[in-house]
Amino acid sequence: MNRSSLVQQIREKKSYLCVGLDTDIDKIPAHLREDKNAILNFNKAIIDATRDYCVSYKINTAFYEAMGAKGWEIMAETAAYIPSTHFSIADAKRADIGNTSSYYARAFFEELGFDAVTVAPYMGEDSLSPFLSYTNKWTIVLGLTSNPGARDFELQKLQHSGEYLYEHVIRTVSQWGNPGNLMFVAGATQASELGRIRNIIPENFLLVPGVGFQGGSLKDVSEYGMNEECGLLVNASRAIIYASNDERFAEEAAIIAQQYQAEMSLYFG
Amino acid sequence: MNRSSLVQQIREKKSYLCVGLDTDIDKIPAHLREDKNAILNFNKAIIDATRDYCVSYKINTAFYEAMGAKGWEIMAETAAYIPSTHFSIADAKRADIGNTSSYYARAFFEELGFDAVTVAPYMGEDSLSPFLSYTNKWTIVLGLTSNPGARDFELQKLQHSGEYLYEHVIRTVSQWGNPGNLMFVAGATQASELGRIRNIIPENFLLVPGVGFQGGSLKDVSEYGMNEECGLLVNASRAIIYASNDERFAEEAAIIAQQYQAEMSLYFG
Repeated sequence: MNRSSLVQQIREKKSYLCVGLDTDIDKIPAHLREDKNAILNFNKAIIDATRDYCVSYKINTAFYEAMGAKGWEIMAETAAYIPSTHFSIADAKRADIGNTSSYYARAFFEELGFDAVTVAPYMGEDSLSPFLSYTNKWTIVLGLTSNPGARDFELQKLQHSGEYLYEHVIRTVSQWGNPGNLMFVAGATQASELGRIRNIIPENFLLVPGVGFQGGSLKDVSEYGMNEECGLLVNASRAIIYASNDERFAEEAAIIAQQYQAEMSLYFG
Repeated sequence: MNRSSLVQQIREKKSYLCVGLDTDIDKIPAHLREDKNAILNFNKAIIDATRDYCVSYKINTAFYEAMGAKGWEIMAETAAYIPSTHFSIADAKRADIGNTSSYYARAFFEELGFDAVTVAPYMGEDSLSPFLSYTNKWTIVLGLTSNPGARDFELQKLQHSGEYLYEHVIRTVSQWGNPGNLMFVAGATQASELGRIRNIIPENFLLVPGVGFQGGSLKDVSEYGMNEECGLLVNASRAIIYASNDERFAEEAAIIAQQYQAEMSLYFG
């Protein structure tokens, strides 16, 4: 999916919601767990219930890797079920030396067919370039993350410029791609920094986790992070997929997703 | 495997060699490729041929993820074939917010049963603590990596201390674990920095990639990086597993592994 298609979807649906399918067998409704396809069925029901209110789905690979090869299959089948109208993200936070990164890119872009994959920037340019070399695919690089540990390294100031490491990462990496193939992760819990981020990268989309369970404010994120083409994909996972843990899990997920979309339509209608 | 067992293995074998099983179906000998268990059979043959000369095996998950769920199965079967006498490493370079990292830890420590997993430090303490919370398991954190991109961020100086980011990472992370559960990655191509690293962490083991194909010097690595309990696991993959691409692939791999061990015995005999 290219940028103009993504922006068109956002405009049509008045939504920049990404639903995270971080599905844990121990947390899905009890009545589903006996089924040998429990997780896949849960994911499909969530997708069916929420697709009208969101423009994107994100699958965090950790939850599926914890289940072994079977988990990888479930992830692949879930990815295949995501409608082609929706922007699909493998939240894998991968990276390695260049040669090895090319295998990660093959895994997510070719084998699993995702539109986008999240990557970690620590190892620098040659670790990211294999991802960026794909046409019609997106690389989403960690910038300022939503968790408390962001203060340990991301919010350390660099000697030569006095800017934070995360600013230097965004500034540097933004030169290795363009607003048509490169996004950055910026945590919703860090909304006050979004203005600083927008000064560095006015055009690139931001993937914004941390609204919902982690406590970030959608209003602040939208106020500080939005640009003329929206430029945001705001992710919620647990608040939506675990909205209810009984037979109404899909209907309740839809209600929460719709609430997010309704609020989003006020900010980017 | 705890630290004293690992050190004992190194002393007995006079080797600190780790063999990397970065196996690509397009690069293994042609005569094997027809077999539907080609990669697993290749890995088993390499393990059988090299086990006397090394103390550790490292599986880089990217090569297996590129093959989908089938690749994950091959990785699991390969991991199960690694002898219990050998220190097994999942080279996954994972990390995520705390809750999610715990699923990665479960995947590699429990589901796949590896002794150790490599992790990326960018997201800070809570992203690493789920790994460090396991007893009798090891977390190997990226420090100064072997690739050219190390200069982009790892070799940036920080304002408050004037030290490199990678030094600050090692210094900070070393306080979150101890020499019995925490190692760092230091590239062989960065041997001149190993002395600086040893000043910060005299005790922790270092996983050292980059000898062999990437051109690092085993002699320099050993001179600058070794401590009284050796403190090094030096990895070679392509130089060993692709030493030959015909029917003699396992014998040739054994010869190269033995050459490394012979040289190592001069440095830590």
